[in-house]
Amino acid sequence: MKDRQPFDIARLARQASQATPQVAQLSTEQKNTLLQAMADNIRQQQKMLLNENNKDIEAGRAKGLTDAMLDRLLLTEARIEGIASAIEDIIHLDDPVGRLGDFSERPNGIKVGKMRIPLGVIAMIYEARPNVTAEAAALCLKSGNGVILRGGSEAVYSNRAIATLWHQVLADTGLETAIITIVPNTDRSVISELLKLNEDIDLVIPRGGEALIRYVTDNSRIPVIQHYKGVCHLYIDEAADIEKAVAILVNGKTQRPSACNAIETLVVHRELAGSFLPKAAEALAEFDVTIHACPKSREFFADAQLATDDDYHAEYLAQEIAVKVVDNYEAAIEHIQTYTSDHTEVIVTEDELRGHDFIRRINSSVVMVNASSRFSDGGELGLGSEIGISTSKLHAFGPMGLEALTTEKFVVLGDGQVRK
Amino acid sequence: MKDRQPFDIARLARQASQATPQVAQLSTEQKNTLLQAMADNIRQQQKMLLNENNKDIEAGRAKGLTDAMLDRLLLTEARIEGIASAIEDIIHLDDPVGRLGDFSERPNGIKVGKMRIPLGVIAMIYEARPNVTAEAAALCLKSGNGVILRGGSEAVYSNRAIATLWHQVLADTGLETAIITIVPNTDRSVISELLKLNEDIDLVIPRGGEALIRYVTDNSRIPVIQHYKGVCHLYIDEAADIEKAVAILVNGKTQRPSACNAIETLVVHRELAGSFLPKAAEALAEFDVTIHACPKSREFFADAQLATDDDYHAEYLAQEIAVKVVDNYEAAIEHIQTYTSDHTEVIVTEDELRGHDFIRRINSSVVMVNASSRFSDGGELGLGSEIGISTSKLHAFGPMGLEALTTEKFVVLGDGQVRK
Repeated sequence: MKDRQPFDIARLARQASQATPQVAQLSTEQKNTLLQAMADNIRQQQKMLLNENNKDIEAGRAKGLTDAMLDRLLLTEARIEGIASAIEDIIHLDDPVGRLGDFSERPNGIKVGKMRIPLGVIAMIYEARPNVTAEAAALCLKSGNGVILRGGSEAVYSNRAIATLWHQVLADTGLETAIITIVPNTDRSVISELLKLNEDIDLVIPRGGEALIRYVTDNSRIPVIQHYKGVCHLYIDEAADIEKAVAILVNGKTQRPSACNAIETLVVHRELAGSFLPKAAEALAEFDVTIHACPKSREFFADAQLATDDDYHAEYLAQEIAVKVVDNYEAAIEHIQTYTSDHTEVIVTEDELRGHDFIRRINSSVVMVNASSRFSDGGELGLGSEIGISTSKLHAFGPMGLEALTTEKFVVLGDGQVRK
Repeated sequence: MKDRQPFDIARLARQASQATPQVAQLSTEQKNTLLQAMADNIRQQQKMLLNENNKDIEAGRAKGLTDAMLDRLLLTEARIEGIASAIEDIIHLDDPVGRLGDFSERPNGIKVGKMRIPLGVIAMIYEARPNVTAEAAALCLKSGNGVILRGGSEAVYSNRAIATLWHQVLADTGLETAIITIVPNTDRSVISELLKLNEDIDLVIPRGGEALIRYVTDNSRIPVIQHYKGVCHLYIDEAADIEKAVAILVNGKTQRPSACNAIETLVVHRELAGSFLPKAAEALAEFDVTIHACPKSREFFADAQLATDDDYHAEYLAQEIAVKVVDNYEAAIEHIQTYTSDHTEVIVTEDELRGHDFIRRINSSVVMVNASSRFSDGGELGLGSEIGISTSKLHAFGPMGLEALTTEKFVVLGDGQVRK
């Protein structure tokens, strides 16, 4: 161990914030060279990564982690290659830093424009997946930010191994390793201390369950990107194309029910209930989807339970769905506005004006017409990799790519002007 | 009193958040009509406003408020006309709500764009100036937001009077008065309760001293726009035009020293010290500016005190300035990066590359070449009225106009696409 001082999160954060101007000043080319070196390093050190990861897996088995948790933790050759190529994908993303907006001239002749700059130091607080340690750090680096990574205790060996590879690459380029700082102590108490360091940390992104995100929000002096849950609605309008509606329903609900962009509630216009719901029921039955139906839709499903208010609030994250028939479009809007989690809502309609009205009135982070909610994802929306999804409106709303890791400063060019 | 229930800030906030979708859906024309009605109402009710304001002034005198505080509190005929015409200025600003960005098409044919939407409910916490009650509310309304106004106890009569005028205008248009909510209780304890209401309030903007802003930041679960202080630097480069430098110095320091965009520290390249500093000393002496000089610059000033480290951190807000001579440009950058408050920094130079380097390396909210720091203001930068200035990088950085009171959602237009 190089560092024999007692563990001190405030000192780590200070070191990260002091090192961060180095990465803010790197050119796009320098950042891409670093990322390529990291991707190469990950491939070369595959065996070491598998060995270290195996220690986490064995400890996890001994602790009795569920199979799902062990799977999230597991690295394989294919997953390691996936991490390396995810970093290479980030190389190809446009670098937002230094981008200059249009200048406009004021009556006194000063020219006013805006330039994109990094945020500073970003703290990621996450749970089991070790790929975050590689990919989130790569996104922060490409956007000129320093990063403090505080992963879960289950992944401690894997995370340290990935951090070692980052530090090799940074040191080889003559950069301070504190630009990517791993918090070696995984005690929960470290989080509450970290959340007070608003002098040195500019943004906190928690990734995990609702309890973690709520804890971070309630205790942080640092701005927090919140992502509570995705209770995504699919509304089938009276003017819907029934075939499209069934396809979008099946894809949204069943393709990956554990994802936050999966459909949790189906809202159907009364006029279409008789023609659409039998087909929907048949299609969902193929995937053994459990149905919680309102009184008006229950007859269309073989084994539906009666939907409660809790069902309309539920993020099932499983092959399970709530169904609600509404008397008209206004009632659909009202239902969605009451139960929305501000994540993603979809309308299926062939009526263009209706579609535009839905877009205008539903203020969730992603609003769609005639497309699957599963497209609510940074990659699918064209942002490249995403660092997270924000369901709160401040700073960023919806999937967050590189640009959401930057801000803009004002630039003023004068010729000696003073204020009258 | 219509409302005989005991005072309950949570209930007020809930009412505001339930009323807010009404204002989010108003057209630009409807919002402008409301604003014009308010400007007219203010002019018509001038006498009532002066009477109510007089109660605050008398109470303030009895409490022994300073003349400066009484002056901030005071309304006059001219100031009331100023408030009315400030609201009329907001009518002419572009409405950001509903603005749709360019759509781009993804390989699968879905079209992805972004639309600007209001933030929701904004809470303003401020001190004496009653014009905030009119102007901040007008900006929130124009950007489709609800607003909760919690002014200081000194201005309680004036604020209630202005609120009454708002409520008349809202009610006349058939809108809920909770869209503009005044907190009638000015106990400090109300603030700590309000800061926990993150279900109903989307953003807090504190305007006041550093203690208030720090208290709000440390205790809020709601995102906060922070504006700590403005320690603005003016750097006179070796390639500066001395006449421009003197004019920018005098304007920045003396035109309105109590403003946050006034210059607090003058940094001078060694090469120019002998030619520039005597002229600077002469010009500053005319305004009786107190000088805190470094050892290398002290000789140029008649009565300079020796500058301490505290002087370089100071926001004097007075005819007072710290001076530092540096050996080279790099030392100037280092001094500014050490002492910056991230507000506004200015370089005076005729060397264009040097100017661009300064812009690239100084990440304050406003960076200027050859112009007075006094232009660091929403109106001067072309934003129209400003709701505040952010010196933290999240969400908004620098002067905040209407657009900073909105966010963007993603809009996806498909034709039945599902994810593979």
